[in-house]
Amino acid sequence: MSDRIEADYLIETPIDPARAAAVMAGEQSAGTFVKVPGETPELQARAGAQVVSLTPLDATDSPSLRGGQQGTRYQRAKVTLSWPLDNIGPDLPNLMATVAGNLFELAQFSGLRLLDLRLPRAFAEAYSGPKFGITGTRKLAGVADGPLIGTIIKPSVGLDPQDTAKLVGTLAEAGIDFIKDDELQANGPACPFEERVSAVMDVINAHADRTGKKVMYAFNLTGEVDEMRARHDFALSKGATCVMVSLNSVGVAGFLGLSRHSALPLHAHRNGWGYLSRAELLGWDYAAWSKIWRLAGADHMHVNGLQNKFSESDASVIASAKSLLTPLFGDAPCIPMPVFSSGQSALQPPETYRHLGHADCIYAAGGGIMAHPDGPRAGVAALRQSWQAAMAGIPAADYAKSHPELARALKAYAK
Amino acid sequence: MSDRIEADYLIETPIDPARAAAVMAGEQSAGTFVKVPGETPELQARAGAQVVSLTPLDATDSPSLRGGQQGTRYQRAKVTLSWPLDNIGPDLPNLMATVAGNLFELAQFSGLRLLDLRLPRAFAEAYSGPKFGITGTRKLAGVADGPLIGTIIKPSVGLDPQDTAKLVGTLAEAGIDFIKDDELQANGPACPFEERVSAVMDVINAHADRTGKKVMYAFNLTGEVDEMRARHDFALSKGATCVMVSLNSVGVAGFLGLSRHSALPLHAHRNGWGYLSRAELLGWDYAAWSKIWRLAGADHMHVNGLQNKFSESDASVIASAKSLLTPLFGDAPCIPMPVFSSGQSALQPPETYRHLGHADCIYAAGGGIMAHPDGPRAGVAALRQSWQAAMAGIPAADYAKSHPELARALKAYAK
Repeated sequence: MSDRIEADYLIETPIDPARAAAVMAGEQSAGTFVKVPGETPELQARAGAQVVSLTPLDATDSPSLRGGQQGTRYQRAKVTLSWPLDNIGPDLPNLMATVAGNLFELAQFSGLRLLDLRLPRAFAEAYSGPKFGITGTRKLAGVADGPLIGTIIKPSVGLDPQDTAKLVGTLAEAGIDFIKDDELQANGPACPFEERVSAVMDVINAHADRTGKKVMYAFNLTGEVDEMRARHDFALSKGATCVMVSLNSVGVAGFLGLSRHSALPLHAHRNGWGYLSRAELLGWDYAAWSKIWRLAGADHMHVNGLQNKFSESDASVIASAKSLLTPLFGDAPCIPMPVFSSGQSALQPPETYRHLGHADCIYAAGGGIMAHPDGPRAGVAALRQSWQAAMAGIPAADYAKSHPELARALKAYAK
Repeated sequence: MSDRIEADYLIETPIDPARAAAVMAGEQSAGTFVKVPGETPELQARAGAQVVSLTPLDATDSPSLRGGQQGTRYQRAKVTLSWPLDNIGPDLPNLMATVAGNLFELAQFSGLRLLDLRLPRAFAEAYSGPKFGITGTRKLAGVADGPLIGTIIKPSVGLDPQDTAKLVGTLAEAGIDFIKDDELQANGPACPFEERVSAVMDVINAHADRTGKKVMYAFNLTGEVDEMRARHDFALSKGATCVMVSLNSVGVAGFLGLSRHSALPLHAHRNGWGYLSRAELLGWDYAAWSKIWRLAGADHMHVNGLQNKFSESDASVIASAKSLLTPLFGDAPCIPMPVFSSGQSALQPPETYRHLGHADCIYAAGGGIMAHPDGPRAGVAALRQSWQAAMAGIPAADYAKSHPELARALKAYAK
């Protein structure tokens, strides 16, 4: 394992790509093109970033991003840079400034996107990674095989704690494994965190006492660090088995302030991901971005879903999910449980399973459960049956012949 | 003052913009188009987002962002949405999910950018804003009038604490007001934070004892919250008068964990800003983004500089600087000191002053000081003279006749 940090980028530039790559390396380390006093060859060798590889790709006549240098052709390339670990140590917040700092603004680029990261082993010692991950989540949720069938409280906002608890009762009776707050619901005056936790956990604990099944509920505790720690402790004291946090709302240091403290699975919500990723030649690929949060302790990570209601392609969704399942280090794989959601119903499990190769995921549906013509219990059953069929290698239509909930769902949700 | 949160967006959509705006409002609040049980008119009235205004702009034949719904024309518009404060309370981390959450991914949009924010007065009570701002910074730096002439330690990384302190001695002798760590230098093994602070403050304190002038040095304490608090306390104990933090590395909750604790001006670095802003029809405008950090306590905020080395236009730089000087609330203006940097020399002050209308800023140059043909002392003097001329309404070329450092600089840096 190298003791250097490596990052892969997709670039687009009107200048010689090799020179552009050298500009990136200089800007993000000890400088290259504007010599200043003290910038000796020894210092460059010790602290400078290096261009590890450069692979030219296609070229285009018009720049993907404006404002930079003008040219006639804009060449795309894949570039890998590396940095000595000694520049920053195994430090995630400062890794951000190194691999994803000023360089996106450089005038030499009409496109620059961070694709992937490879980190020295020292990061595995400095950060815990997911404390629960797939195994710990399955244990707490009492689901040994198959996906956790989940849902989201809807309407997203507007329900008070008692309304929320009542809906949780309905969902628990329907056989759900997992429920999450919407990311818009945190600790507003209309539905304060502690009141919501108390009301919901009363229902979940009573249901568990009666049936032996404890539904996992991810309470959105997003807030300041001291608030998140206090909310975590409160949820834990009420018997909660999961908390949720909006990653882009709290940031890496905010998240670490929670995860260092946490004794519950951390359900990591990626809302805001669009502004980081939707321009094809700018920002972050999920593989790079998610590695930061995996190391920092995210137990569940959202990857959208196939045929979703958003703009993301199925190929991108599957690439994201697969990237989560790639070990970060041999002895510290840091693998979170992928969360599929957005417009999911009994229709998508076969294809999801075919790509994923297993069912180690949270599979969340809103309308796909609540809008089942025979109600939420049938909605949950239909999703579970769709997954059972996929895992057994049986076409859903065949399995539906002996499973009426699935049959009704396939018809109701057909597009 | 309204008790609703308002956000302005630039959108681009292949569908009717009014319908697109309603989709945004639904996705970011209580849902509109997919009815679920419990979504009553009363709940919508109480918790739903509203489309306050919609102003059609131009249209285009090709979508700015791919992956969404196809169309023949993509209409641009300015949309203002509002939310009831009760949904989240005056809460900056959760404001992020509300105004800048999932909506960027919606398939109905081929472009979506957050332009500006207006917040209820309750936010001014919940957050301190800058504790020092312009007045407090001037007092600590001992600079009553004109800009703080500043510079950045270069090479960015590779100098150890003793090398750094030696360079600080040279810069202090040259008459500098302000020095900052590069954002790539934080607490790596090659230049640990506490050793750097100790070595640098020995030089700064000795210089202050000798001359009465205490140079302000912004030590980059970016890290986890508990680390940042400890580093802040250490720097304060050594007599430091400023600390620096990379906003996008720590996030809003991370920054608040520091700012609630801090007794020093917070120099807020925006590295990573490019991935948030460089696609014209995606992400954040500076006015919106900076308001979050201003409320959260940023004392100094980077705005790039005129004729900079990056891809940003002069108009955008000036718009950013002016947005910082717009009060957030009448009795809580939350105005930070703008920081101009990137490729600055004695050439740009007249134009900067003309746009800004005053000299309440930190004006930082690297090569613009160190590469002056007569050395750094002449470099600092030339920058100060260029500002003096601008503030007195005298053309730089005229002022240079009686100010040789400026004369040499105008010649050396001429483009």
